[in-house]
Amino acid sequence: MDILDYFTFEPVGARIDELETPVPIIDIDIVDRNLKRFQERCDKLGIANWPHIKTHKLVPLARYQVALGAKGITVQKLGEAEAMADGGIEDMLLTFNILGASKLKRLAALVRRVNMTVVADNPVVIHGLGEAGRDAGKDIGVLVECDTGARRNGAQTPAEAAALAKEIADTPGVVYKGLMTYPAPGTRLSTEAFLTEARDLIAKAGQETEIVSVGGSPDMWKDEGLDLATQYRAGTYVYFDRALIKAGACTFDDCALSVLTTIVSVPTPDRALIDAGSKALTMDLLGLEGYGVVHAMGDAPIYGLNEEHGYLDISKVDPKPAVGDLVRVTPNHVCPVSNLYDRVVFHRGDTVLGAVKVDARGAVQ
Amino acid sequence: MDILDYFTFEPVGARIDELETPVPIIDIDIVDRNLKRFQERCDKLGIANWPHIKTHKLVPLARYQVALGAKGITVQKLGEAEAMADGGIEDMLLTFNILGASKLKRLAALVRRVNMTVVADNPVVIHGLGEAGRDAGKDIGVLVECDTGARRNGAQTPAEAAALAKEIADTPGVVYKGLMTYPAPGTRLSTEAFLTEARDLIAKAGQETEIVSVGGSPDMWKDEGLDLATQYRAGTYVYFDRALIKAGACTFDDCALSVLTTIVSVPTPDRALIDAGSKALTMDLLGLEGYGVVHAMGDAPIYGLNEEHGYLDISKVDPKPAVGDLVRVTPNHVCPVSNLYDRVVFHRGDTVLGAVKVDARGAVQ
Repeated sequence: MDILDYFTFEPVGARIDELETPVPIIDIDIVDRNLKRFQERCDKLGIANWPHIKTHKLVPLARYQVALGAKGITVQKLGEAEAMADGGIEDMLLTFNILGASKLKRLAALVRRVNMTVVADNPVVIHGLGEAGRDAGKDIGVLVECDTGARRNGAQTPAEAAALAKEIADTPGVVYKGLMTYPAPGTRLSTEAFLTEARDLIAKAGQETEIVSVGGSPDMWKDEGLDLATQYRAGTYVYFDRALIKAGACTFDDCALSVLTTIVSVPTPDRALIDAGSKALTMDLLGLEGYGVVHAMGDAPIYGLNEEHGYLDISKVDPKPAVGDLVRVTPNHVCPVSNLYDRVVFHRGDTVLGAVKVDARGAVQ
Repeated sequence: MDILDYFTFEPVGARIDELETPVPIIDIDIVDRNLKRFQERCDKLGIANWPHIKTHKLVPLARYQVALGAKGITVQKLGEAEAMADGGIEDMLLTFNILGASKLKRLAALVRRVNMTVVADNPVVIHGLGEAGRDAGKDIGVLVECDTGARRNGAQTPAEAAALAKEIADTPGVVYKGLMTYPAPGTRLSTEAFLTEARDLIAKAGQETEIVSVGGSPDMWKDEGLDLATQYRAGTYVYFDRALIKAGACTFDDCALSVLTTIVSVPTPDRALIDAGSKALTMDLLGLEGYGVVHAMGDAPIYGLNEEHGYLDISKVDPKPAVGDLVRVTPNHVCPVSNLYDRVVFHRGDTVLGAVKVDARGAVQ
């Protein structure tokens, strides 16, 4: 099995220095290594790998992940699920409350053609999902989303989770399948305690918790608190990024995606301007200093962004870059970056393999 | 002349409560008023209006701006210029250094079919533009970009600007047309002093400065320091946003674009989750607290964003919202928001007019 077999590239030039900028360039060998390494880990742990495609949004990579052993993929929005279903993916977990007549109709259509599991954290959502299941003529498997410390949404207590499991059991068109959480980084043990209590309460009511779904790239290599988990959802590990270097989940050498940019001006010895701004790198900081770094210049930081300009601190860079030089920026948070581009480019060393459409770009609905 | 004449809408439902979320919804009457008001001001001042289309990226609005009296439009990247040329716009100022063989070829193609003026702040760019002009068989008008206080790119001193004007004069394929700056908000007077000195130095060398191009929405209503300016570039004023309310350039009633979202969970009395995260609202803060506000809830802030989740502070909201409620978020910085979406929706009151493609979305190259 070769990762290249999954791609049909559009030609965009043979060498990296022939590419127009700004453009995300992705080292296919690093991607391959990242995907295989985590699949092997899941296999070893006996946990089903359900990679989140929110980061790459690419059908070819989703299919390759499944070929490597993923039991299915995770998506956040219906539009992502539709793009992946169109690309031949057959098993998906959608980890977002679905609401509204129009979306429930789209969900029913998906349920009829692929294997969909969804989540819910409140009765309104459960009742809507029930309607969609009845519309589809097929019960929809539902996981109860739990807030185990991230303070986002989800059942706030194990008792609340158990009540929702019962609500699902009482609602025609849906079937209770288990528990799901996005554990805040560093909270695996308390998360497991929450989920164990919820599972036990649910068992007392005579319901079986078949799936316990956890996830997150920051803690992906940590072993603690995984005894209960049956599936793991990680997304960012496909490319990694500066935030995950800081979190200790990877090193720079694991970062597969950089944004290739051009130095368009060097107005002072301290400052260079690149042609990548917030529309090319996003304003995501994730607690970091700067909006990305140029690793080849000693991690010179992008200290400011306008929409199309990036401000590169070259005060410590020697020799100084020249107008026209290409520089690669390692982004802080890679997921929203790949979502900005209609196309991304894959390469192997200095050889450009070609561009591919970002299938689920902008699929926020 | 009716703004509606410029649009061909795609059907997406009749009423706002039928729309899928998250989606940017744009009040066409506010847009109309914003555009007319600033055009009238430019007419009164005798300054040519060259609206920047980076905010809306829509051919219909660019054409309407020209119909209202704009002398041309401003674009930041070649991809924007190409989208606008495809849509019938004939006069454009591109305010970004263009570099690289492939981009210069695209510029030459544009120069052959529409009236393009470009900028440069260094000799490398000037020489490339000269090549493009010779390739196009048509001299390209160039403005010298000046850094008059924004500390971005541009000539650092009037003397440097004059040297660049001479470099342009000495380069076949380009012709010196004038000076351009993005003045940092609040620096109009020092900007004018810089530009006056540059113009005088350039005049001494026997070159005429035909165009003096300034811009910016934050200072758009200020009269000081505009005597030298011959053209004004403003972009954000088409929709306005929270940052421009803070800057005093508009009020909430002038904000034409909001992001329609759905409350998907109310896990606690203090917190509601909406289906718009950083992929729907961006992480742009622009010095503000929160990632947008819900005006109809007393400016309740979005205090956090994940990629697809927004955290709405409902601690002071009474009555509390319910799961399924629609809420409209006023974004901090509207320009990168409209760049996230393939389509935006226009409405008049509660009546949906329809969706249009964001023609130059993602055109960062």
